[in-house]
This record gives sequence, structure tokens and C-alpha cells, in this order.
Amino acid sequence: MSDSLQRPGGPPPTIIGGALPNLPWEDRPAGCRDVLWRSTLNPVIPRNLTATSNSIFNSAVVPFEGQFAGVFRCDDKRRRMQLHTGRSVDGLRWQIDPEPIVFHCDEPETRDFNYGRYDPRVCWLEDRFYVTWCNGYQGYPTIGVAYTYDFKEFYQLENAFLPFNRNGVLFPRRIGGQYAMLSRPSDNGHTPFGDVFYSVSPDLVHWGRHRLVMRPADGWQSTKVGAGPIPIETREGWLLIYHGVLTSCNGFVYSAGAALLDLDQPWRVIYRTAPYLISPQTLYECVGDVPNVVFPCAALYDAPSGRIAIYYGAADTVTCLAFTQVDELIRFIKDNSLV
Amino acid sequence: MSDSLQRPGGPPPTIIGGALPNLPWEDRPAGCRDVLWRSTLNPVIPRNLTATSNSIFNSAVVPFEGQFAGVFRCDDKRRRMQLHTGRSVDGLRWQIDPEPIVFHCDEPETRDFNYGRYDPRVCWLEDRFYVTWCNGYQGYPTIGVAYTYDFKEFYQLENAFLPFNRNGVLFPRRIGGQYAMLSRPSDNGHTPFGDVFYSVSPDLVHWGRHRLVMRPADGWQSTKVGAGPIPIETREGWLLIYHGVLTSCNGFVYSAGAALLDLDQPWRVIYRTAPYLISPQTLYECVGDVPNVVFPCAALYDAPSGRIAIYYGAADTVTCLAFTQVDELIRFIKDNSLV
Amino acid sequence: MSDSLQRPGGPPPTIIGGALPNLPWEDRPAGCRDVLWRSTLNPVIPRNLTATSNSIFNSAVVPFEGQFAGVFRCDDKRRRMQLHTGRSVDGLRWQIDPEPIVFHCDEPETRDFNYGRYDPRVCWLEDRFYVTWCNGYQGYPTIGVAYTYDFKEFYQLENAFLPFNRNGVLFPRRIGGQYAMLSRPSDNGHTPFGDVFYSVSPDLVHWGRHRLVMRPADGWQSTKVGAGPIPIETREGWLLIYHGVLTSCNGFVYSAGAALLDLDQPWRVIYRTAPYLISPQTLYECVGDVPNVVFPCAALYDAPSGRIAIYYGAADTVTCLAFTQVDELIRFIKDNSLV
Amino acid sequence: MSDSLQRPGGPPPTIIGGALPNLPWEDRPAGCRDVLWRSTLNPVIPRNLTATSNSIFNSAVVPFEGQFAGVFRCDDKRRRMQLHTGRSVDGLRWQIDPEPIVFHCDEPETRDFNYGRYDPRVCWLEDRFYVTWCNGYQGYPTIGVAYTYDFKEFYQLENAFLPFNRNGVLFPRRIGGQYAMLSRPSDNGHTPFGDVFYSVSPDLVHWGRHRLVMRPADGWQSTKVGAGPIPIETREGWLLIYHGVLTSCNGFVYSAGAALLDLDQPWRVIYRTAPYLISPQTLYECVGDVPNVVFPCAALYDAPSGRIAIYYGAADTVTCLAFTQVDELIRFIKDNSLV
Amino acid sequence: MSDSLQRPGGPPPTIIGGALPNLPWEDRPAGCRDVLWRSTLNPVIPRNLTATSNSIFNSAVVPFEGQFAGVFRCDDKRRRMQLHTGRSVDGLRWQIDPEPIVFHCDEPETRDFNYGRYDPRVCWLEDRFYVTWCNGYQGYPTIGVAYTYDFKEFYQLENAFLPFNRNGVLFPRRIGGQYAMLSRPSDNGHTPFGDVFYSVSPDLVHWGRHRLVMRPADGWQSTKVGAGPIPIETREGWLLIYHGVLTSCNGFVYSAGAALLDLDQPWRVIYRTAPYLISPQTLYECVGDVPNVVFPCAALYDAPSGRIAIYYGAADTVTCLAFTQVDELIRFIKDNSLV
Amino acid sequence: MSDSLQRPGGPPPTIIGGALPNLPWEDRPAGCRDVLWRSTLNPVIPRNLTATSNSIFNSAVVPFEGQFAGVFRCDDKRRRMQLHTGRSVDGLRWQIDPEPIVFHCDEPETRDFNYGRYDPRVCWLEDRFYVTWCNGYQGYPTIGVAYTYDFKEFYQLENAFLPFNRNGVLFPRRIGGQYAMLSRPSDNGHTPFGDVFYSVSPDLVHWGRHRLVMRPADGWQSTKVGAGPIPIETREGWLLIYHGVLTSCNGFVYSAGAALLDLDQPWRVIYRTAPYLISPQTLYECVGDVPNVVFPCAALYDAPSGRIAIYYGAADTVTCLAFTQVDELIRFIKDNSLV
Repeated sequence: MSDSLQRPGGPPPTIIGGALPNLPWEDRPAGCRDVLWRSTLNPVIPRNLTATSNSIFNSAVVPFEGQFAGVFRCDDKRRRMQLHTGRSVDGLRWQIDPEPIVFHCDEPETRDFNYGRYDPRVCWLEDRFYVTWCNGYQGYPTIGVAYTYDFKEFYQLENAFLPFNRNGVLFPRRIGGQYAMLSRPSDNGHTPFGDVFYSVSPDLVHWGRHRLVMRPADGWQSTKVGAGPIPIETREGWLLIYHGVLTSCNGFVYSAGAALLDLDQPWRVIYRTAPYLISPQTLYECVGDVPNVVFPCAALYDAPSGRIAIYYGAADTVTCLAFTQVDELIRFIKDNSLV
Repeated sequence: MSDSLQRPGGPPPTIIGGALPNLPWEDRPAGCRDVLWRSTLNPVIPRNLTATSNSIFNSAVVPFEGQFAGVFRCDDKRRRMQLHTGRSVDGLRWQIDPEPIVFHCDEPETRDFNYGRYDPRVCWLEDRFYVTWCNGYQGYPTIGVAYTYDFKEFYQLENAFLPFNRNGVLFPRRIGGQYAMLSRPSDNGHTPFGDVFYSVSPDLVHWGRHRLVMRPADGWQSTKVGAGPIPIETREGWLLIYHGVLTSCNGFVYSAGAALLDLDQPWRVIYRTAPYLISPQTLYECVGDVPNVVFPCAALYDAPSGRIAIYYGAADTVTCLAFTQVDELIRFIKDNSLV
Repeated sequence: MSDSLQRPGGPPPTIIGGALPNLPWEDRPAGCRDVLWRSTLNPVIPRNLTATSNSIFNSAVVPFEGQFAGVFRCDDKRRRMQLHTGRSVDGLRWQIDPEPIVFHCDEPETRDFNYGRYDPRVCWLEDRFYVTWCNGYQGYPTIGVAYTYDFKEFYQLENAFLPFNRNGVLFPRRIGGQYAMLSRPSDNGHTPFGDVFYSVSPDLVHWGRHRLVMRPADGWQSTKVGAGPIPIETREGWLLIYHGVLTSCNGFVYSAGAALLDLDQPWRVIYRTAPYLISPQTLYECVGDVPNVVFPCAALYDAPSGRIAIYYGAADTVTCLAFTQVDELIRFIKDNSLV
Repeated sequence: MSDSLQRPGGPPPTIIGGALPNLPWEDRPAGCRDVLWRSTLNPVIPRNLTATSNSIFNSAVVPFEGQFAGVFRCDDKRRRMQLHTGRSVDGLRWQIDPEPIVFHCDEPETRDFNYGRYDPRVCWLEDRFYVTWCNGYQGYPTIGVAYTYDFKEFYQLENAFLPFNRNGVLFPRRIGGQYAMLSRPSDNGHTPFGDVFYSVSPDLVHWGRHRLVMRPADGWQSTKVGAGPIPIETREGWLLIYHGVLTSCNGFVYSAGAALLDLDQPWRVIYRTAPYLISPQTLYECVGDVPNVVFPCAALYDAPSGRIAIYYGAADTVTCLAFTQVDELIRFIKDNSLV
Repeated sequence: MSDSLQRPGGPPPTIIGGALPNLPWEDRPAGCRDVLWRSTLNPVIPRNLTATSNSIFNSAVVPFEGQFAGVFRCDDKRRRMQLHTGRSVDGLRWQIDPEPIVFHCDEPETRDFNYGRYDPRVCWLEDRFYVTWCNGYQGYPTIGVAYTYDFKEFYQLENAFLPFNRNGVLFPRRIGGQYAMLSRPSDNGHTPFGDVFYSVSPDLVHWGRHRLVMRPADGWQSTKVGAGPIPIETREGWLLIYHGVLTSCNGFVYSAGAALLDLDQPWRVIYRTAPYLISPQTLYECVGDVPNVVFPCAALYDAPSGRIAIYYGAADTVTCLAFTQVDELIRFIKDNSLV
Repeated sequence: MSDSLQRPGGPPPTIIGGALPNLPWEDRPAGCRDVLWRSTLNPVIPRNLTATSNSIFNSAVVPFEGQFAGVFRCDDKRRRMQLHTGRSVDGLRWQIDPEPIVFHCDEPETRDFNYGRYDPRVCWLEDRFYVTWCNGYQGYPTIGVAYTYDFKEFYQLENAFLPFNRNGVLFPRRIGGQYAMLSRPSDNGHTPFGDVFYSVSPDLVHWGRHRLVMRPADGWQSTKVGAGPIPIETREGWLLIYHGVLTSCNGFVYSAGAALLDLDQPWRVIYRTAPYLISPQTLYECVGDVPNVVFPCAALYDAPSGRIAIYYGAADTVTCLAFTQVDELIRFIKDNSLV
């Protein structure tokens, strides 16, 4: 990642981070009034990209060596959940490894062999990429943690928490000298509740000082909420895209919103969107293995221009892309905050 | 509304009511065998007609000053439920007020401030338009009642019933000297049961003499039933369009049928359709925020010709239109009655 | 009932009502610290007092012609729920009519024939005794209303509310010129929720102006709350004994507390006990057809002395008696209020 | 059915059965990698093929007198479930009798009059066609059995099992001298569990020696499994196509897989697909009365060429067709077996 | 068993069966009005009669070689359910074998090894004693069948039905030339529904011609009903003692009633008690491992005198005894019938 | 605590710990065959020991300054759950502080003010007593941690884990250099599942390296299992008394068993009782606020004699005492192990 570029004579960019000019950014379509707009190429990853895949969704990508790399949730035709690596020149066209990731792990008790891995996130932190995902320890979901330098070899650490937990999302730098993670305690099934919590660790192994960040609110986020992509550091606070769930008489509906968290005390929510940013409305979001799901897991940004690209799973079947601009988004969050 | 026109030399029209020539009626499509047919312009109101709307559905319209007016359920992008007024020249193209209705109400205990209003009906009764809707009193659903003369100022009365109740539908004239309303007692969630009851009132405030009208039956109406549009007075009885719900292994499926109720004792069902008139079969009915929902809330008629236009919500997302003819419909109800 | 007696030279009695010297009052046992104490003769009515009774509980008694009369819930050995009249010289030893009450009713639709009647209350109001109970209209529970002059002939009116409702309790005089009733809207089963509402009527037939009185709170009253005996008018407000329900991992636990309601606006709660007054602790309250139930339905008072006798059902099996003194009770409510 | 043809000089055909050259077989589309491929004419039977049908799906067809005949599940517009006969020249274009089948039956207790029949299978066995279906005895689902020689007159036997049961599938010949049937015991609703069992009978009336065949496994078949078409006899074992169900947060998802059962002891599973063969992925499978359902009920084969055509219901709304080739399919089952 | 004795000059005994003078019969206690009365020695078998027993209940006894034998449900201190034999001189004091029954069975698939056996019945039929019980085939409950000549060696046959089933009760002779059994289809847990069905078999292996006998009714038998002891043949029909279950807000309550079934067509209910005969009212019936359970599994009779002794489990903890007289009981059934 | 005494010439005591001669130990009653026997003084703490207590149960005691101290769960008459300290000369007669414990805590976010504290354990560890309990952080249960030197001042640390968790039990010394705790992840209600996990910490604030210790098994421990008293170090391993739950049709039944855990890797279970040690069988265990509960929270021992006294809550109402001897208990665990 290149350094952030100060525009001459102007204010510093809102996003504290590098440039990413080589993603094929799309402008907001004419006539569109929304703060977030879908890619015209959606779904950018079809369900059957690999020979054995039933669906590819809820996946995480990052800039890597001038191109892109990612960790993908590929459910196979047995409907087992697996993690695969992938590489791409432009972030749109992907080569996904047909074989699942094999984690190096010296600890047989927690080594991840089985087929219960899902919903990965990838975070550049200090000197390497960390992967967090929902991992099936003894058949119970909790937060798996691993790292890689090259998206070839992956080294698995201890699970971060006791079961039952999902949607573990690391912060991209230490806060107050400690590693920090968001997560969503759950139960062992289709959990009908869910709050976002914040925990810290001196060593990425032992976790404590747990703090509640956000509860469900009304409307689209009334059943549960969970962190989405790695938070983006901005001059206004940590920008967190998150998912919210509403229970209709036909089951769960997953939409996405955004919040600004305090930079030093991220469990303090400064602003949080009352309306959703995006909800299931297109055919590829409404129809699939699980209808009516929009589930963001990664957000790439170009700090100088403020552009943000959000990768999200649709209908638990395909992977899609949406765009926004950071200043417009922060304006929207502030103007539509329920805090 | 103009008076009913007696066709010279012919029998009196079946519908007891006025003429409505200026709706853009559509004839039954060639080859269609159904007693009810969809508008070719469906969905006539898209989900994003206003800047803040997530969806517009389950709404009520009436003829008004030679044109049309209505009260619309507009869920905002927070997925909160609100009521908005709207006006239209032809009943198809609508201008919906971007701001929710503000009810005048002297009683702070019951004044409707919150965002839990939904599924309105509008009824011309004696000298004004009455609006009934599902109102959140103390967070519990019950039947809100208000009136307007001009669709600008709305005056809220007492809630008609104790919680928990939904789908309150007024009759368009007094019966036996008293005001009359249909409703569907419920619980506080996605109620898996529901019968239509009839209640009367001397003053639109105190209600009593509650009578059961109809229970669920088999097939499409086996889980619950609820009144739809304001009943239409005909020479054969009150024509009631109603919704019925079937529980599939993927949740509720909402369809619509019709019944004829006794003119003087409307809790007596004379005929009631065993088959549905319309069920979710088009893409806009099967795909949306809540798949597989057809939910009628208003029916306009042209008494001389017997044409009826039914407005219905589809997939809890958009508003649609369907047509029928009263004599054909009554024939169908009689020929396919489960009573 | 005789008039209230002013004690010479002292303040007027707290209870606004008559004297009742002929109940065999029991003093608080030595060493007892509780504001409410059980009769040493409990259970005062055994389960098999009549030849056909499985259980006799949740019943209402009143002073009548210098002695006592009542309406009793007698479940028969079919476990059907019925109402029977009874007479007693002292309020302890009862002759219960072996035949259920037959209500006179000109309206066949609502006439109560079936075996789904339960939990009666009896209220002296203006010139006669009114009975309210949970009545099965079309198989759905709602509030039945009837009156009697002599506990021989009973005349049934319209049901007060739409289904689903339970625990309808009349006030013993008009308030603001209107009849007033408390009730607890419910669903059709073992309702796991329940709030007390207040409604008024000009004629005991049409009811409106519904107001929320109290919701569940914490601890013993965290699942649902419902009115118990007819409220007692005191100089401090309406004294309402009510039941509250806690859900343990082994089912519902019914206890009882008390509240003071505003005399003119009884939906306003002035004080309400945070602790229970009585909870299931004796063998006859903990063991029976429904373990762990204390359910008060009637309260007799002697205004000059302030003594109050509370009849309550125990374990849905037998009828019991407990005593308190009004000034001590009001002191306790104020000192332990959660309002 | 004609006899199986030995290809000169080659090995005997894998399928032990006749030729069926006159079905309009479709080759695998170019670029398709799947072992099973959909007909380009899907859905081959639309939902409204008859005047009263709401949907036509989960139906069974057989070769008959050089053409085709079948028994169809036609839900009417009441959403009642019925069985109708149909005839076709090519297996694609069907004439379905607008009247439901009337079964001859001397036993009034079990004669099938009502409207709770669904999911038929048809099996040529010895000298006639047997129909099995889910039959509503006393309102409870169990396995109905009947036979026909001509698809005009149907003769109903005793129900095979006690309630509650579904998906009774006969074997096409006696095994060990006895008739044999697969079935899936259930409960009275949307059963969330289900295993395939095997039972035998000397007379098609009394059944016993019940054996477990297969339980749910992981992924797409984790909630329940049930037999699909009549098993096909092959030199490798009985080829059983079966459905499996996964429970997503939006309800059940029905897919299909295949297994090979021992020829003499069919309760022994030799191989069974870990991945599904087909899951809901097209619009007609994902959108309809019950979204996300693929449900096979019949499989026709041409033994010399090894072609197999599978009829399956889609979204509980329409009937579809898919193709495979037996040697490729058996290879796939063996290569992807979870046994 | 000795032959039935004709009383000289009198009518033949109502019960068609032998004499049993050596049971220590107890007369109805003074003042008791009930048609069934409890033994003063209850509970006749304590929970800890064997060194490993947690509870002994829901068990079956028969006259045997002038004394008594039985098959007992002994849950061990692991709370696993097992069957043990026992012997007694007088039917009250029992020696129960500390080791569970080992069934001889040539069929490894169905041989009963595990610890999921419960609720046995024992039936003298033609030339031996048959035992039926709830057997865990593959972890699913169904009806196990075995026979013994000597209560030492037991020979297990095939399970009678597919899972899920409980309370299989044989008739003591062939009817219409076939063996006959009552049973109660269920699901795999605490089944909240249950009807009694009748099935026949030529060989005790294959079962068919299934007929509904009785559904739940109101009150104490509103959730489910199941057959209890082996039916007693009388001149008025088969006398069936059965259990019924009511669901209170604190769980299931098991009581018992009786019915008369047609001698030749036992699925026809001639009379059936509307009230229960016995419900949980004593401390040993209301308090124990499962509170509020009365569950009869055996009935012994002395035909000349018409005395009947009923063995029943209480609170799923101990075994109790109650008495009745056949003519009084039949009179009661007829006078209190809901048929 | 005094040092362990080596008996001259004999083997070292099995328990690695001190002497405790001053508890009024009771011998096994004559005729009792059980490895655990109840105190003849049960319940040793009645429900109303303090003026405000509804119940006192599930509490922890330790030897303290030659006498005894403890932390008690005292539910008040509001049925709110609180922790109180208590002191006793003999461990039987207790003075319980009428005011709840006030924890010193510098962190306002986690300071425990509310009334959702329950089921404490107390552990002597290095230089002070640690208290762990189920603490309501933000209304969600998790494991609170505090310490005291004198049972007067208590200092609260961070909660150990994310919600949802219960039954946190510390080990009485570091293992492998780290603090160690057992816990039982749960959900937010009457959790119907539960396994025991092991976690370690360098600082009692950050926890990690989570390991599964034991799952539910069959019978009495089939629904969930949770650690009871502080594990006792023995020469055979850590002796863990734990509770197990069975779900009957009338709710949860709590019993207790025991296990031996590896001294160095305590997540390895060496032996574990298949039968329970104690289940609800007495009136005070079967009748109370929650029927059928035995719940041990503390175990005191006298190492030289091997006597162990177990404090357990009964029926969620009172506190009881039972006794065992360590060598007999370990023999029993080994002889009856399901591992």
C-alpha cells in the first residue's frame, strides 16, 4: 500500500490510509440519489466460479502487491462451508484456488480441519495479514484467528473467544497499546439476537476488557447487528460498516448500515445510521440459497479521493460490489444518526 | 361521488354506489380465464417513489374531488412504518407527500407520534373520510381511527379496541343505526392465527356487541384471515375482499379471496370463496422484502359498469392494481363458495 | 352493606366503605413479620367440596344479606371449567351449588353454554352484583359480564371486549360518569405476556378510551401482570391487589402484589409494590394441579377496623384466605414502591 | 416397456430394464460440467395448465402404451392438494384430466375422499401400475396405496403404515419374495426431521421388518432426507435419487442427491453423494409458492443408452425435467460418496 | 389362570376370564364416593427397591403360576431406562431382578441392547406371555415385541411399527383371526399430540389395516391419549383403561380414564369417560421426578367377583395400586360417556 | 487453613490440602448405601433467614479464620438476585448480612450495581479469596470476578468473558503458570444446552486458550452440564463436582455428579460418573420456587480424614448440606465412569 497523499493546499484526506488507484471504480449512476450504489457488473463473482462451488459469498479482499488477494467463503456442493484463497489483477476477475486453505497449526486441539469455516475478514496489521472467521471448534462456532504474509501459507493461532461467537473483526492497528477486536456473541443455531462487543488483547491469544458497542435498534436492524468490514480509520472516527437483521414473517432480512466509533475508545458510538445504506432489492440479492441477504465483509478505499468499494455477499449465493465516497457517507451518517 | 345511474330499461346496477369513469380501466387480457386480472402497468407504485422510501405498499386510495387521494404505508430506509398522504389525477401516477401525516389530537395519551403505523384503510362515511390503521399504542398494535375532509388535516380519535388488533376496516354507512367495523384480534408479533370479528359503536369511541364473522378455512386461508378493502354494498350483500394466509415451510404466503356478507347482519357470511382470487405468482409478488405477499387494502368501483379496481401491496414492497367486474365476481363467489 | 362508621374523635377510616364484623378475622401470628398473613384454616375450601369437583379455586365472594355469597370456579373431573354459586354463614364454610350457573340471555350468539368459564370476580355496583369472568366466545377467551340480585338468577350481557382477553375486573362505582373495567389482553393459550389496561363504557356494552395501567416489571412480576380482586376505594387511591408471573425453567410462578391507583384517573399508578405480598411457599400453594400458584380474586374489608380478607386460589386446586390491615398495607406499598 | 437390448459385442447395459427411445432426450449443454443438466424447456408443465390449478408439481410419470401417463399433484386455487391423471405423447406436453382421480375402494374407513393427497409416485410392479402418495387418513398424513391398469380406473388398498408418514416409494420388483417400500416417518406438520426406512410386506397390506436406510448428513441434507423416484435397478445396485433438506434462516431448502443401495438388502447404502446433484438455482426453482425447492418424484430411463430423465417439482409450483447418464452418474456417486 | 366360575343361579360374570382370589384386595374406604380407590399401601413399590434403581414405575404385572410376575421399568441412577423382571407372592411385595432383561434375538439389526426401553405391558396370548414396550430402534422410539414362557428367557421379535411410536398394547386374543394391537404414533421428543390407533397382523411381524380408535377430547385428555393396561374382555365390550394428558402452564398432567370398545371391531368406541377416573392428587403422584403423573400399565381381575386391581406409575417415580369393581366401573363409564 | 497432616506410617492423604476438624461432620446413616448422604439438619439455611429474603441457595462457603465465611445468593421478595456475605462459627448456623455486597470498582462500565447477580463461588487463591458469579453486564449474563481479604471489602475486576456465560469456577492454584477457570457458555434465557470449557489467563483479566472439558451425556446429564464447587486437588486428579440437567415434560431436573480431571491438563477428563451422586428426592429438593433442583456450589474438606462436605441449593429455595469421603467417592467415580 502506498502512503496517503496530501492534496497540495487542501485539507488532509478524511481517510487515514493509502491510495488505491487501480480498482476499476464506478461513478454513481445518473439519477441515483443513494449514498451507496451497486456495481453495474454485479454479481462480480458468480456462484459457480470453481468446479465444486455451490456459492461464493461473504468474502474478504485486500490490496496485495499492487494487485488484489482475498479469502473466500466457498460452500461446496455438499453445502459445506470452506475458505479458499484467491488472486485478482483488478479486484473484479478472480482466480480462486480450487483447494481449501490448509492452516499450519502446532496445536492439534484447535487446528482447523473441518468444514465449518465461514464469513472471513482479512486485516493488514503491523507486518502481516490477519484472517478472522467463524470457526467450528468442537462443532461450536467461535472466532478463528490466523495470519499470512503471502496468501499461500497461513498460520493459525488460538481461537479468540469461548463459543458461541461470530463475526470477529480486527482493528487495523493497536489501540491504547493493545490489539482490538469486535465480535458478536451468539448461540449454536440461527441466532435470533446479536450485539457488537469490543475486546482487547496484549498478545492476540488472551482477550479481556469486554465492552458493549451496539445493540439492535429499530426497523432493519431490530433483530441483531454485527460488524462487517475492517473498520476504516478517518479523521472523524472509525468508520464501521455493519449488517443488521430484521425478522419478517418469512425469516431474516439482512441489510447494511454504518457507524462512526471513537478513535481511542471504539466502544463509544458517535453516530450510527437510522436508515440502512443498502437492503436486498435486486434479483441477485432477493433470490438465492437464502433470499433477502446483503452481507458486507470487506471495504477497500482510495484515501486521496475518498472512494470506498464494499464487497458484500448477496442471498448467501454470490459476491457483489458497491461504491461510496467517504465524505458523502460521513455526512449521511451524521444527518441520519439514531445516536 | 356521483349518484348511481340506472340504465334505462335494464335492471339496477348490482353495486349500490356512484360512477367512477375516470380511472384508466383495463379489460381482461385475451386468453385470461381468471375472474381477477392484474394491471399491465404493475407495479403501479415503485418502492422508491419518494426520496426516503424503502417500500410503498398495503395502501388505501379513494376518489376525491374528481381525482384521487390516498393514505400510503411508506416504510422508510430505517424500515420504520409510516403513513403519508398522496394525490393523483388518474389513480396510477401519484404524488406522495414526502412528510408523514401529522394527526391533530387533543389527547396526549393516544396521539400518534411514533413510527409504528401501518396498513391503512380509507372510508367515506356520512360527511368525511375516515382512516383506520394499525397503530402502536404503548408499543402494542391496535386500531387507530382518524378523519379528514381534505387529505391535508387529519384528526385522530380514540383507538377503537384494546391491543392487540390489526386490520380494522369500517363499513361505509351505519348499520342498524350504529357504526360498524371489522377487525382481526392478534398478538404482539407475527401472529400465527387470526379471525375476522364485527363490532359496533354509537359514537366511534366505545365499541361492543362483538361477533365472529369468519375463521380460517383450508388451503390458502388456513393460518389467518383479515378484512381487506372497505366492503362494497351490492344488491347481493356486502362484498368483502379479504386476505388469507397459508404457512409453508418457508413462512407465510398471503393471497386474497372474497365473501358476501348479509346487508343487515354483516357477521353472517352468505358466500365465501374456497379458491383464492389472486395469489403471489408474478415476480413483483414473489420477490421483495417479504416474498409471496398479495395484500389488498382498497377497492374502487364504477357502479354503472360494475368495474372494480383493487389496490394491493405486493411482497411488502410495491403497490399494484388488479381488476374485476362485480357480476362476474359474485357469480364466481357463489359458484366456488365453501359456505 | 352497612355504611362506613366514623370513629368518634378520630380520623375517618382509610377505606371508603362499610363494616363487616362477622367474618372470622384472624390476627397476625406471633413472630410473623409479613404485611399479609395466611389463615390457619387454609385451604378453607378443599378441592372435592362438591361431588363432581376436581378443584375449587380462583373464586370470588362478597358480603350478602348479612352472610356471604360467591361465584366459584369449579373444575369438574373432566377438567372442564365451570362457575357455581355458593352461600356461607361465615365466609369459611361454604355450600356450593352442585349445578353450574345457568345464565339468562336473550342473545343466542353470546349466551354462555359451554364449559370454558373461569376466574370470576363479583362486584357490587349501584343496585346489583355484577359478575365478570373469562368466557369462551367461539372458543376464544374474552370477558363475560352478567348481573344478579340474589345469586339465584343471573342475567348475561354482551361480552365486554373482542377476544383475546382475561381477568376483567370492574370498579365498584362509576368514575367520571362512566363504568370502568380493568382487563388483560392475551392470546389463545398459556399467554407469556400480559399488561393491565383500563377501559370505560356508558352502558356496560360498548367500551372505549383504552389506557395502559401497568406493564410487567422485574422479578416475580416479569412475565405478566393482571388485576385481582375488585379495587378497594381508599382515601389514598384505589387499592388494587394484582397477580404477577415469573417464568422459571419449570414453568410459570404466580405471586401477588398491590398498587394504589389514582381515584379519578385510575390508569395512573401512584405506588406499586416492588416485592410480592405473597408467593407460593406452602405445600398447598406449591403442590396441586398447577404447582406454584397464588391467585387472588376477591378482597373483603371491614372499613372501621381496616381489616382486609383476601381469597385466593392455590395451585389451581384449592381456595385459601389471607389477611392484612389497610393502613399497614398502604404503608408497605409506599415504602416498597417501584414507581 | 420393451426388453433391455444387449449391445452386440459390448458389456450389458448398466440399467436392468427396457428401452425408451421416444422421450425427447436433450444432450448436456456445451460448457456444462454438471453430472445432471436441466431441460431447456423448463418448466415443462406450467402452474396453470388446467383451469383450476394453482400449481402442478411433485408428480410422477411412466412410459405407457408407447406414450406416457402420469399422476400429478395439482393444488387447486383453494390451495387444496389433489391427484389428477394425465397423458402425453412425448412426456413434455401433457393433457391433465381436469377432474381429480376417484379411487374405487370398498372400505369406507380408508377411502380417499378428501383433499389432502400429495406427492405421488407411480411404480410398474408385476402386472400393473401402483400409485403411492401421501394420504390424509383422519387428517393425518400416511402412505396411500392404489393400483391401475389403464390410468382410468384406480383401486385403493389399505394405507401402508400408521400415521405419520410421507414419501412412500415402492421397489419395482419383489425382493426376497416380498414387496418392499421406502418411507419417511414424520409428524403432522412441517416436519423438521426425517430418515428413510425400508419395510416389507407379503401382501401389500401388512408391513414389517422395518430397517433404517439413511439418516440426514451434513450440508444440503442436514435436516431431513426422503426417497424420490422409484429406485432404478442397475448392475451396481439400486439407484436411488432422493431429496435432502437444509434449514437456512429463511426456511427449508430442498435439493437432490443419489445413492446406490444393495440389490438384495436395499437398507444397506453402498454409496451416497456428499454433494447435491441439483439445488435450487434457477428462477423457477427459487421463486414460487415455496421458494428454493427441487423435489424429484420420477425417473425414466432408456437402458441401452443409459439415459435418465428426472421429473421434479420446482418451488412447489411447476414441474421440470433434468437429464443424466447412468454410468456418469454412478461414477459421480462413487467419486463423491460420504459412505 | 383358572377358568371363569359361573355363579350358580346368577348371571354370568361380566368379565370373561379367570379367578384371582389371592391378590390382597382392598375394599373401598368408608366415605369414598369414587369408582376407583387407591391402595392404602401406596406406593407399593418404592423408588429404591433395587440397589441401582432411581425409580420403578409404569410397569406391568400378571398372575403367574399361582403367584405374580412382572416386567418393570427401572430407571437407574444414570436415569437410563431399563426393563427388569420381578416375582411376587402377593402382587405387593416384589423381588426385582437387579440385572436388566437380556432378550434372545437372532437379528442383530433390531436386538435390544441399549438403555432406551420403557413403559412395558405384558399380555397372556394363546400359549405364552408377550411383552410390548417402547423400544429405541436406532435411537428412535417404536414398539418392541417379545415373548416369554417363564419370565426368565425372553425372545425378541421384530419391532411392530416404524418409528415413531409408543404405548403398544396387545389384545389378549385374536380378533377376526388376527393379532391386534393398540398404539400411539408420536414424534421423537415430549410429543404434544397423540391418538390411539388399532392395527392387525397375521404373524405378529407384519402389521396393517390401521384404524383410528380415539383422539384427544377436552379437559384432562386434551393433549394426547394412549392405551394403558391390556384390554379386559367383558360382556359389554373390551374394557380399556387409558391415560390422557392436559398441558398446564407448568407442563403435562397425566390422568386416567376408561372406554368400552366393540368386541369385534375394537376401533369402534362404544363409551368413553368424560371425567377422569383418577388424577394426580396425592403427594406421591404430585411430587417426584416428573410431577403430576398417573400412568396405568396393568390391570388384574378376579372375574367371579368383578374386582379389578390397576397398577400405575406415579410421578414417574414409584409404582402404585388402585382398585375398582367391573360392574360399577362399566356403569360409571356409561353414565359419564362423552361418546 | 492448617497444613495437611501426614499420618505417621501411612500413605499420604488423598486430598492435597489442609485439615478442617471443626465442621460438625455427620457419619453415613445406618442402612444408607449411597456414596453421598444428606445432612439430617437439612435444609441448613431456611429461605427466610433474613428479613428480606425470598430464598437463599446456590451459595458458596469457605473456612475462614478458624470459622466460616461465605457469599450467598439471596433472592429478595422482589425475586431479584443478590449476593450477601455471611459468617458462621460451625458452618451450619449463619449470620447473613442483610445488605447486599457493595463491590469496589474503579471502572464504571462494569461495576456491578444491579440486581442480576447469582450463583457465586469462592476460591482461596495465592493470597486472597476470589469470588466468581454470574453477573449481568448490560443485562447479559457473564462471569463476574472479584476478590476479598476479609469478607468485608470486595474489589471487582473485569468480567472474565464475553456474554453469554454462567458457572465460572476458578481453580485454587495456577496451572502451568497461569490462572485457570471453568465456565459454561450459554444464551440469555433458560439455556437448553451447556458444556464445560477451560480457559487460562496470565492476569485474571485477559483469557484465552479455550478448551472443551465435557459435554452433556445421557440420562440425568443429557441437557447441559456445569461446574459446581471449586475443584479439589487430589493425588488422583482434580475432583470436580458438577451439575447435570435432564429435561422432562415438566421442565428441567438438576442433579449432581463428579469427575476427575488431569492435574496438569484439566481439560482432560480421566473419569466421570455415569450415575448421579444425588438427585432431587426429598421434599425440600422437589418442592419450592423451582421444583426438582439440586445445585452444589461449594465443597469443604478435611484432608487427613478425607471427609468432604458439599453445600448445595435445593429447589432454588434453600441451602442444604451433604457428606462424602474422598477415597470412597473416587472409588465410586472410577467404578461408575462413562469415560
